[in-house]
Amino acid sequence: MSHELIEQVFVPAFGSSILAELDDGAWIEASGPNVCITTDAFVVKPLFFPGGDIGSLAVYGTINDLAVMGAKPIALSCSFVLEEGLELPILKRIAASMAAASKSAGVPIVTGDTKVVEKGAADGVFITTTGVGQPMDNARLRCRGLRRRGLGCRGLGYNRIEPGDNVIITGTIGDHGTAVLLARERFEISSQVASDCAPIHELVATALASGADVKFMRDPTRGGLATVLNEIASKCGMSIAIDEANVPIKTEVSAALELLGLDPFYVASEGRCVMVVAASDAQRLVATLAGHELGRQSAVIGRVEKAPAGMVSLASSVGGRRILPMLTADQLPRIC
Amino acid sequence: MSHELIEQVFVPAFGSSILAELDDGAWIEASGPNVCITTDAFVVKPLFFPGGDIGSLAVYGTINDLAVMGAKPIALSCSFVLEEGLELPILKRIAASMAAASKSAGVPIVTGDTKVVEKGAADGVFITTTGVGQPMDNARLRCRGLRRRGLGCRGLGYNRIEPGDNVIITGTIGDHGTAVLLARERFEISSQVASDCAPIHELVATALASGADVKFMRDPTRGGLATVLNEIASKCGMSIAIDEANVPIKTEVSAALELLGLDPFYVASEGRCVMVVAASDAQRLVATLAGHELGRQSAVIGRVEKAPAGMVSLASSVGGRRILPMLTADQLPRIC
Repeated sequence: MSHELIEQVFVPAFGSSILAELDDGAWIEASGPNVCITTDAFVVKPLFFPGGDIGSLAVYGTINDLAVMGAKPIALSCSFVLEEGLELPILKRIAASMAAASKSAGVPIVTGDTKVVEKGAADGVFITTTGVGQPMDNARLRCRGLRRRGLGCRGLGYNRIEPGDNVIITGTIGDHGTAVLLARERFEISSQVASDCAPIHELVATALASGADVKFMRDPTRGGLATVLNEIASKCGMSIAIDEANVPIKTEVSAALELLGLDPFYVASEGRCVMVVAASDAQRLVATLAGHELGRQSAVIGRVEKAPAGMVSLASSVGGRRILPMLTADQLPRIC
Repeated sequence: MSHELIEQVFVPAFGSSILAELDDGAWIEASGPNVCITTDAFVVKPLFFPGGDIGSLAVYGTINDLAVMGAKPIALSCSFVLEEGLELPILKRIAASMAAASKSAGVPIVTGDTKVVEKGAADGVFITTTGVGQPMDNARLRCRGLRRRGLGCRGLGYNRIEPGDNVIITGTIGDHGTAVLLARERFEISSQVASDCAPIHELVATALASGADVKFMRDPTRGGLATVLNEIASKCGMSIAIDEANVPIKTEVSAALELLGLDPFYVASEGRCVMVVAASDAQRLVATLAGHELGRQSAVIGRVEKAPAGMVSLASSVGGRRILPMLTADQLPRIC
C-alpha cells in the first residue's frame, strides 16, 4: 500500500523532481557547510480546522522552527504514519495542502517515508516533518563551528539576553489553539476564529536584515506565549515583565477562551514569533515588522528584568500584577 | 508530559550538548554545501525483538539510508509519538538503545520532538528519524549542484547501471524480518534467529574507498531483496538474473520461513546492502567487503541483463528459473 500511495498520492502532489526519483534520500545544496536541522511530529486533532490542516501545519511549523533558529529553510522531509482504512480523499487533501504550503513558502519537500499501521493502531494520520536550513543573512549564529571562527559573539541565543531588553510579539496570541479546540469539541459557540498558521521565515528574515539587535526568537506554539516566556526567564535566570494591555489578542479569541475557561497566554499560535531585542532597537523593529503582512500587529509587550530569577509576571490592564507560571501539564493536548 | 520526558529521559540518555540546549533545532557543520537528507518512520511491532528494538532500528535504518546514497552520516533528529500510559521503563529502555546505537555508529542525535496522544490513538511508540549526511570520500554524486560542476558523471544512480554489471549482497537475507515475525507471533518455533540490524555506513565507505566502480546501492529492507531488485530492473528497463545458490541465507532463517510459508526473497534485512558494480571490479569488491565485520558473507549473486525489461529472475539451486515479481501488497506489515 505504501508504495502505491507514494507513487499515486505524494509524488504527483509534491511534484519535486528529487522526490520523484524515489531514492532513499535526497541531495541538496546549501550555501555553505553550516546547516540547521529541526524536526516536529504533528498529531493535531481534528485533521482539518479553520485556517489550516495537519498538512499545512506540518510544513509551516517546521519552517518556523528553522526561522527562529536564524535559518533560511531550504528543504523539508516528511514521514507519514497512516491508519489502515484512512480514506484516500482525506490523504489526497492533506498532500495537496502540504504541496500548496511548500510551494507558497518556497521550500520543497525532497524526500519522505510512509508507513501504514492496522486500524486502531494510530489515529488517522501522524506526520513528522524535518527541515534543513542555512544561515539567514545577518543571522549571527552561535553554532560551534562559527564560534570557533569568531563569528558567533553576537549570535542568537539565551546567553545574549540582558536586563533591559524588550520582548516583542509579531501578532495576536492564541488564534491557532482556539480554532483547533473549537473545531474539535464542536462547541455551540458560533465563532469566526481561524488558525494563524503561516510561515514566518520571511518576516524573521526581514527583522534580521533590518540590523536590529535581535537576541533570541521563538515561536509560541504548544503552551503558548507564557511557556516561551517562562523558558526564557528560566534559562537566563532573569525575570520577564509583560504588560497585558499591549499583548494583541482578537476579541473573538478572547471571548471564546473566556467561555471555555482557558487562559490565552497558554494557547498556541502557529504564525507568530516572540523576539527579544535590545531596547534601543525595539520601536524601530516593531515598525519594520508592521510593514510585513504577517507582522501588522507587532508590539513591544514587555521587558527583561534582572530579578526575580526565572519569573514571568503580568501587569493586568485593570491594575495589579500576577505571576504567569510554567504549566507542568499540557493544557491542550493534540493542538499541533 | 512531553517537556518532562525530554528533560528526564531523552537529554540524559542521548547526552548531546546540542540537544541539551532544548532549542527548536540544531546547527551542525558539514564538510561543504552538499548535504543528503533522508527520513524514515518506524512502527515495528513488537518494540523489542532478538537483535534489536525500535530504537536501534530507527538509528541504524536512517544511517543506512544515508550510506546507500553515498553519504557519510553526520547528525540525526528523532521524533516520538507516544501513547499515553506507555510505561516509563519501556521508553527509557528505547532511549538507552538509541543512545547506544548513536554512540557506536558515531552519529549524534542533535534535535528531536515528542508528542503524546491519548490511550488507543497510537500503538505504544512510533519513531521518525531523519539523517543528514555529507558526501563520502570517493562517492561520485549525482546531485544537481555537483553535476553542474562536472563532478557527477560517474555518480551513484540507476542511470549508471549497464548490462553486464554484477549484483552483490553483503550478507545473509531475511534475518531481520524473520526475527521480528517470530517475536511478534509467538510461534511455537524454537529459534536462534536474531535481526541483522546494524549500521552499514563504514562497510559502504570501505567499498567506495576501494575504488571499485560501484554504480548503485540500496539496503533491502521492507519487501526484501526481491523488491530492491525489481525497483532496479524497473527503473533501468533492464533485467536482473539471480543465482539462488549464491544468495547467502542462514539455515535457521530458511527453516523458519519455510514453516511460515514465506519467501525469504521478500523478507527484510536491516544490516545488508545490495550493490551494483562493474563486472570487472566485482570479485575484488567482494574480497574487500568480506574483510569487514559486517560483510563477511558478501557474494556476487547475479548480473544485469539487457532484456526482458523490468524482469527479475531466479535460477534455482535445483535447476529451473522462476520470476521474482514485485509484490503489490506488503507481505509483512510493521516489520520496521
